[in-house]
Amino acid sequence: MKIALAQFNPIVGDIAGNAKRHLEMILDAFSKRVDLVVFPELSIIGYPPHDLLDNSFVVDAVEVALKWLQKRLPEGIAVVVGAPIRNPDPKGKKLYNSAVFLKRNAPAQFVHKMLLPTYDIYEEYRYFEPSAQQSPIVFKGLKLGIHVCEDMWNLEKYATYHMYERNPVAELVSQGADILINLSASPYSHNRHALRTNLIQDLCAAHHVPFVLVSQVGANTDMIFDGDSRVHNAEGDIVALAPSFEESLTIWDSEQLMPLNVAPRNRIAALHRALVCGIAEYDRKSGIFHKALIGLSGGIDSAVTAALAVDALGAERVMGITMPSKYSSSGSVDDSVSLAKNLGITCHNIGISPAVDAFESMLSPLFEGTKAGVAEENIQARSRGLTLMAVSNKFGHLVLTTGNKSEYAMGYSTLYGDMSGGLAVLADVFKMDVYALARYMNEVTGCERIPVSTIEKAPSAELRPDQKDEDSLPPYPVLDEILRLYVEHRMDASDISLQTGYDIEFVTNLLRAVDRNEYKRKQAPPGLRVSDKAFGRGRRMPIVMKFDRQSIAEMMQDSLTHLTNA
Amino acid sequence: MKIALAQFNPIVGDIAGNAKRHLEMILDAFSKRVDLVVFPELSIIGYPPHDLLDNSFVVDAVEVALKWLQKRLPEGIAVVVGAPIRNPDPKGKKLYNSAVFLKRNAPAQFVHKMLLPTYDIYEEYRYFEPSAQQSPIVFKGLKLGIHVCEDMWNLEKYATYHMYERNPVAELVSQGADILINLSASPYSHNRHALRTNLIQDLCAAHHVPFVLVSQVGANTDMIFDGDSRVHNAEGDIVALAPSFEESLTIWDSEQLMPLNVAPRNRIAALHRALVCGIAEYDRKSGIFHKALIGLSGGIDSAVTAALAVDALGAERVMGITMPSKYSSSGSVDDSVSLAKNLGITCHNIGISPAVDAFESMLSPLFEGTKAGVAEENIQARSRGLTLMAVSNKFGHLVLTTGNKSEYAMGYSTLYGDMSGGLAVLADVFKMDVYALARYMNEVTGCERIPVSTIEKAPSAELRPDQKDEDSLPPYPVLDEILRLYVEHRMDASDISLQTGYDIEFVTNLLRAVDRNEYKRKQAPPGLRVSDKAFGRGRRMPIVMKFDRQSIAEMMQDSLTHLTNA
Repeated sequence: MKIALAQFNPIVGDIAGNAKRHLEMILDAFSKRVDLVVFPELSIIGYPPHDLLDNSFVVDAVEVALKWLQKRLPEGIAVVVGAPIRNPDPKGKKLYNSAVFLKRNAPAQFVHKMLLPTYDIYEEYRYFEPSAQQSPIVFKGLKLGIHVCEDMWNLEKYATYHMYERNPVAELVSQGADILINLSASPYSHNRHALRTNLIQDLCAAHHVPFVLVSQVGANTDMIFDGDSRVHNAEGDIVALAPSFEESLTIWDSEQLMPLNVAPRNRIAALHRALVCGIAEYDRKSGIFHKALIGLSGGIDSAVTAALAVDALGAERVMGITMPSKYSSSGSVDDSVSLAKNLGITCHNIGISPAVDAFESMLSPLFEGTKAGVAEENIQARSRGLTLMAVSNKFGHLVLTTGNKSEYAMGYSTLYGDMSGGLAVLADVFKMDVYALARYMNEVTGCERIPVSTIEKAPSAELRPDQKDEDSLPPYPVLDEILRLYVEHRMDASDISLQTGYDIEFVTNLLRAVDRNEYKRKQAPPGLRVSDKAFGRGRRMPIVMKFDRQSIAEMMQDSLTHLTNA
Repeated sequence: MKIALAQFNPIVGDIAGNAKRHLEMILDAFSKRVDLVVFPELSIIGYPPHDLLDNSFVVDAVEVALKWLQKRLPEGIAVVVGAPIRNPDPKGKKLYNSAVFLKRNAPAQFVHKMLLPTYDIYEEYRYFEPSAQQSPIVFKGLKLGIHVCEDMWNLEKYATYHMYERNPVAELVSQGADILINLSASPYSHNRHALRTNLIQDLCAAHHVPFVLVSQVGANTDMIFDGDSRVHNAEGDIVALAPSFEESLTIWDSEQLMPLNVAPRNRIAALHRALVCGIAEYDRKSGIFHKALIGLSGGIDSAVTAALAVDALGAERVMGITMPSKYSSSGSVDDSVSLAKNLGITCHNIGISPAVDAFESMLSPLFEGTKAGVAEENIQARSRGLTLMAVSNKFGHLVLTTGNKSEYAMGYSTLYGDMSGGLAVLADVFKMDVYALARYMNEVTGCERIPVSTIEKAPSAELRPDQKDEDSLPPYPVLDEILRLYVEHRMDASDISLQTGYDIEFVTNLLRAVDRNEYKRKQAPPGLRVSDKAFGRGRRMPIVMKFDRQSIAEMMQDSLTHLTNA
């Protein structure tokens, strides 16, 4: 049997457009004598559809598109499409997250998803009823163990949040499935490619059947999908692999069981491709921007953001603006000019002193007798943000925000200032990885795209004389290590202190700063997600809250004492 | 039996502080010879705890606090506390949302929540395993049908999203429950009070037992809780009722079965109290702000916001700033000055022309030859936002954002401009209700707090000469009607057109504007939720998306044709 892995890149909500693209890919596959075309999870509406699914008229549109598609299928071919399907039971959630098996002039067959991820960025139980039952679908003499995304992930070794009761893959095999076929919308993060390989190898070892994974590709706002569709033979070896980060039709003949030689991924190279994909897709799918616009500070974050934008959109569609103040070192402007020259982008210089002076004089009656501080620093950052947004409004440009994950964690950034923009490119990249990206982008092109002086100078916000990040923050290698343990591994101060050797009070204060700055992140632009725990939709912390470790410790002590005395 | 309804106002995450306040309320009840004290849902950690629950160390702290509390209970009293409790099964979600029945020196008893709301602002299946089983707890010869919040809501008439399989209340009664006791964290919205009454009356009619509802009170960031704890007798009459919007201990003797005379709520009066509560609680629970700061435009939104702030914090803790530009009518400043005088708040006048002129001259080389438009208008709005934020940063003031729901829907507001701030007071109030609030606040005090000229003038952003809202937007009564049907009732253009008689193209364009402006709302400050569907956490729409009604219609037409030809 010839199976096509249709690694499709949908636009969320564009049900008609997505259906038409399905048909194009199906006709292409048909011309190549394919028997079965498999699309990703929720391919007809795009992942994640969010609360579009709460609208009955959207689900109606899905039904229209599925009927339209089925009527146009060539004779003999079968396709599996991902779609939300109405639950006929008046009790339970109104939809299933389904794989729809379609042939021309035959009743559609359905496999509804059993395991509904509802953690981090996933909220499937918001919309979907878990299926109580799945069965293989017979096609051309083979029992196809079709299932959807999370249904393959219930092995203890891979459960970050919790295990499920059911094991859909095992249930399909016990019903005689000859091959497992998974429709996914599995987002990129740095370890996912290897994790998918390991998981599928474990499943093949347990069940001794080949495994086909077809995943969505592209990016939708904050979520990036690398695709990574593949086929493993019954022994777990990869025998077909789709190109990463590209829409593609990978055709696999089930006779082809020879292992491919799959090189391990370079973490930073993949991160680079992911971020480029995220920018390009935000731009393309929005379809309204003329250029990307970046405030160039001479620092590493804006330089890397600009270089990524060039890789995503081409130099002619990227514009830099350097906005010096009286605290900007001459190096800042020079480095921005060198960067622009290296990247081949235009760069305008708009000094912000007139605006800053205007605000300071407007505010001087009210501010009289106060010491210059954060208010004055933020006036500078916000004058820059305002300038960028004015240019964006005037010419229809997309402002790319340059802050990194370390800054966002600590609130070391100005709301409505450097946090302004439509897409925060590095919001999920820790500072040390921003450096790694810079070095990688220089190495791989063999030339100094990011000026070495930018990479080598001490990071500074340049909002007051001789300011350095390290006046306010721990050194980035230390900071990133602690933040990763707190944010991504959800460890508390005491355990982090124990594991790293850093002083408990130092760690506690740092975690408190993370908690306290939730209000800033609430108002941040969407950020490209590249880790398993990004700020934003996947990490929902209260804004007004109090978690007082000291009082809890005293309460614990107090209870113990009480117990001993009793 | 004497039961105390402990209508508690927790701080989210402040487990130690909340536990101590539990003990105070319990000792108060004990001194009044109460047998049983009932606290609201998740009272020990506060609702909604969000992803604090993903942290194992937070759940540890809950266990510490529960043990601490139990050891301090007076002899003879029993208490029911709401808490996240670990699920001992290695499969399934790691926690239950539980009612914990505690007495001194006795094993704790648990009732775990069965129905886990996961829609709108609720995301309980993100954290909790649904309970498979509940039983009444016997205390002093009575079988107490204790259950948690949503467990009482599974009647078809009240299901907005879907029905559940199980009916926990009926199951408790079938096991002999003599009285139903519900622990809730039920947020305020304009129709909730009546809805709770109707629902409980229906439950009493079906089951013929008294019903005790104990709900959280206060506000946590965007969510406001009116409390509304009460007891209904077996006939469904209200026999005890806690004061709304206040922490309180309402003691009910089970012999007291005489109906109270409960006046129906005035919708606008309740809205006023809810918004005042939201502001006061954001301020008190944050505990870091000196004053509330409001940009006064002379318009209705900022006037109402300022008056609400005064009612929440007192006039001495509210500061207004009027920031005229060359397009501001003289009336704008005058009205702001009158408002400040009426409210007794300080008002500073900071003209923004110096900043606007500075930006225009800085940008003039780049903008040369372009026509003035949105870019120039937004420079004004953002210069105001920047000014407010500078004052906020300087003095530690909380900027209250003044935009209303109609504006937010249409994107008729400037990101980083008038959308700046820590809390968006009117974000869930349609414009016509802002007017109603203004009139109510004048009527109820019998004096002109909001200047009549502010109420009567045509709404204008005053960002260009003679600008009026109605140049860009439909009249507000029309706009609000359509928006309510789309946002709150999730109806599509065709049905809205049918129901209201407005032209379909006009409606479609309006809905498109709502969709297109999701990117602005993504970066809005948290807004006080007062309806059943507020923008923000409860309405999660894709930012980059496309929903093309025309293409779907053509596809439907096309499929029909195809079918006929076939």
